[in-house]
Amino acid sequence: MSEHTLVQKLIAEFVGTFFLALTICTAAVHGSAGDYAPFAIASTLMVMIYGLGHVSGAHFNPAVTIGIWLRGACDKEEVAPYIATQIIAGSLAAISSSNILITNPKPDALEMNTLSALGAEFFFTFALVFVILNVATNEENSGNQYYGAAIAFVVLSGALTVGGISGGSFNPAVTSALLVSDVLEVTDIWIHLIPQITGAGVAVLAYRAIE
Amino acid sequence: MSEHTLVQKLIAEFVGTFFLALTICTAAVHGSAGDYAPFAIASTLMVMIYGLGHVSGAHFNPAVTIGIWLRGACDKEEVAPYIATQIIAGSLAAISSSNILITNPKPDALEMNTLSALGAEFFFTFALVFVILNVATNEENSGNQYYGAAIAFVVLSGALTVGGISGGSFNPAVTSALLVSDVLEVTDIWIHLIPQITGAGVAVLAYRAIE
Amino acid sequence: MSEHTLVQKLIAEFVGTFFLALTICTAAVHGSAGDYAPFAIASTLMVMIYGLGHVSGAHFNPAVTIGIWLRGACDKEEVAPYIATQIIAGSLAAISSSNILITNPKPDALEMNTLSALGAEFFFTFALVFVILNVATNEENSGNQYYGAAIAFVVLSGALTVGGISGGSFNPAVTSALLVSDVLEVTDIWIHLIPQITGAGVAVLAYRAIE
Amino acid sequence: MSEHTLVQKLIAEFVGTFFLALTICTAAVHGSAGDYAPFAIASTLMVMIYGLGHVSGAHFNPAVTIGIWLRGACDKEEVAPYIATQIIAGSLAAISSSNILITNPKPDALEMNTLSALGAEFFFTFALVFVILNVATNEENSGNQYYGAAIAFVVLSGALTVGGISGGSFNPAVTSALLVSDVLEVTDIWIHLIPQITGAGVAVLAYRAIE
Repeated sequence: MSEHTLVQKLIAEFVGTFFLALTICTAAVHGSAGDYAPFAIASTLMVMIYGLGHVSGAHFNPAVTIGIWLRGACDKEEVAPYIATQIIAGSLAAISSSNILITNPKPDALEMNTLSALGAEFFFTFALVFVILNVATNEENSGNQYYGAAIAFVVLSGALTVGGISGGSFNPAVTSALLVSDVLEVTDIWIHLIPQITGAGVAVLAYRAIE
Repeated sequence: MSEHTLVQKLIAEFVGTFFLALTICTAAVHGSAGDYAPFAIASTLMVMIYGLGHVSGAHFNPAVTIGIWLRGACDKEEVAPYIATQIIAGSLAAISSSNILITNPKPDALEMNTLSALGAEFFFTFALVFVILNVATNEENSGNQYYGAAIAFVVLSGALTVGGISGGSFNPAVTSALLVSDVLEVTDIWIHLIPQITGAGVAVLAYRAIE
Repeated sequence: MSEHTLVQKLIAEFVGTFFLALTICTAAVHGSAGDYAPFAIASTLMVMIYGLGHVSGAHFNPAVTIGIWLRGACDKEEVAPYIATQIIAGSLAAISSSNILITNPKPDALEMNTLSALGAEFFFTFALVFVILNVATNEENSGNQYYGAAIAFVVLSGALTVGGISGGSFNPAVTSALLVSDVLEVTDIWIHLIPQITGAGVAVLAYRAIE
Repeated sequence: MSEHTLVQKLIAEFVGTFFLALTICTAAVHGSAGDYAPFAIASTLMVMIYGLGHVSGAHFNPAVTIGIWLRGACDKEEVAPYIATQIIAGSLAAISSSNILITNPKPDALEMNTLSALGAEFFFTFALVFVILNVATNEENSGNQYYGAAIAFVVLSGALTVGGISGGSFNPAVTSALLVSDVLEVTDIWIHLIPQITGAGVAVLAYRAIE
């Protein structure tokens, strides 16, 4: 990846995060894919990882960028621009979904039990970052081709299993898109962000224990 | 692929596009697969890509052929015969589905909001061609084996997410099949073709920006 | 595969075909998997191909054995024992499903429109054998690891798309299992067998045209 | 894997088995994923295999540990600590699911026909261990990258096909989780454990016959 400029990496992060959030907002928030939204979301994530991994590493998620940075596999100077790009892409995707793809948007607000939602976001963000560190940054697995499927299927499992509990975000950029889509209230945003960041941090510790 | 003749490549494009459109017309247009049509469609696309990629490059889609040609990864003389073969295969598949597989065909006409359908076809044709350029023509990804799954899963995500918005074509040969199947009116065909061609063109520009 | 004895190969064909037919009879014929039977069936096929391909080539289907033999990639002496083993395994699986897994078996008989069923079995057996010849016997694709997924996903697409039209067999050993399960009448067996064998033969011709 | 310490391997077995059982208890036992629970379960298994295979071999299942040990591909001293860790992880996952993720847990008790449940657990535990021995321990398949998908898709097929017959466990650690979740009575535990252990043993014999 080193031969790409920061601007190229940010374009890649923008495109990947935009399509991930566009799929989530359209398929899940506005319900265009019905029960199959988790399959659509995981598919978009997988194809964008395989398409853009060689450019930016295909984070598409501030929690992932933080986890990879803490583990030492990402340049410190890139952390802030990556996260800013991801948040902007997620927000623009939410606006595009509501104003272009969905003609009569009336999404239901997320209803969350606080403890359960905290647990759901923590467990699956942990799993997501932990799997990424193992399949995409560990030397013993270098050169593998299953990384895109492995990472996307964490999100498939999480969206199916706890989508109805926390919204199944595991990603502050997706949480931004949910905020812009008016399904998450700003006073509830900590129920997503705290376990997402904590989950990423604990995943780095767990990864180091088994490395 | 250079060792195959143009006739062999056109046979490959015919077979792949025929089965893709046969699956779409039977599973989705005539509803034989119910809610699972997107899974059937993506499966057929994936297996035909893996089966025929070594012969013709497995485009099966005029927008893909145009995108690959603009990117400079396809012979100029092959563009027109590829596209003609794809359109013919799609149309014959629609006829085969209605006259052989479905005994009492009464498909519902597509109802589209123009802006939403234009957006849906643009976004997902862009994603399809953009992913193809990255996984199937970029040297950094040469030799990978996930290209078939990566390309097919764009269509899975698109069909699940915007299938109810635009019909989920992303492919002028599929749009031809929808026309022959009497679910798309000829006066509405521009709602598919313009964003499909534009999406392919913009994907080439985006690809060049990150290359 | 040459280092395995014929007996070892027949054990492998027995195990693979038995589990494929056991899944079909339980999940689809007796309906234990509801709408998801095609996913269960394709999963079993994929895992048995990856598990047993190195022993017997993982045919599990007389139409496949015939196609591979006609293409010259299988020993003539092995054709008859392979097919006999597949038919026996399919029949025993049907008996095991009805007598062990399902306590109150009352499957519905297949209702088929003759033309549509002939077309369905022809098209998808062609696709199955054609894809197998390309991904599992073609030198240009030698060493690939996607063959199991590619082959299984033909069956996923076929079962989803024409499962309600012909039963979605594409395999004389599965047709035997349907016969033993009492969902297919013996006078209708030609509606499966003729297009299955013909589809395999035409697939060999098409393969030779593009080889 | 030899470069990892036993403690590291046990951490890996704990994390993988915990998430597998957490997904099963939440998605299936408490029904958070509805009909799609088998897809969530297989996804979690696949990603944990790809993530942790390089550390512990990714058994996550006492029947698998026993099968791999009988086949001679696992250190005798590791069998007891692996199994103990798996059982503890499964039990803690059940407690976490009921007390954190699910706010009002009222799972339905499993209703099993004894013969059918014995057959279901036997057949699919056999298939699971048999496929694992072939894709993950056989030299002819060494270096393959499909092992995670192949192993997880046995569980997808089994959960879809016999989930309603036996609960679809195929794993004594999962059976422990079902016991802790109060859906399996302690007097019925033999209906799971005996065919699971027997299935693993017969799989080793079948594997040796074709090796």
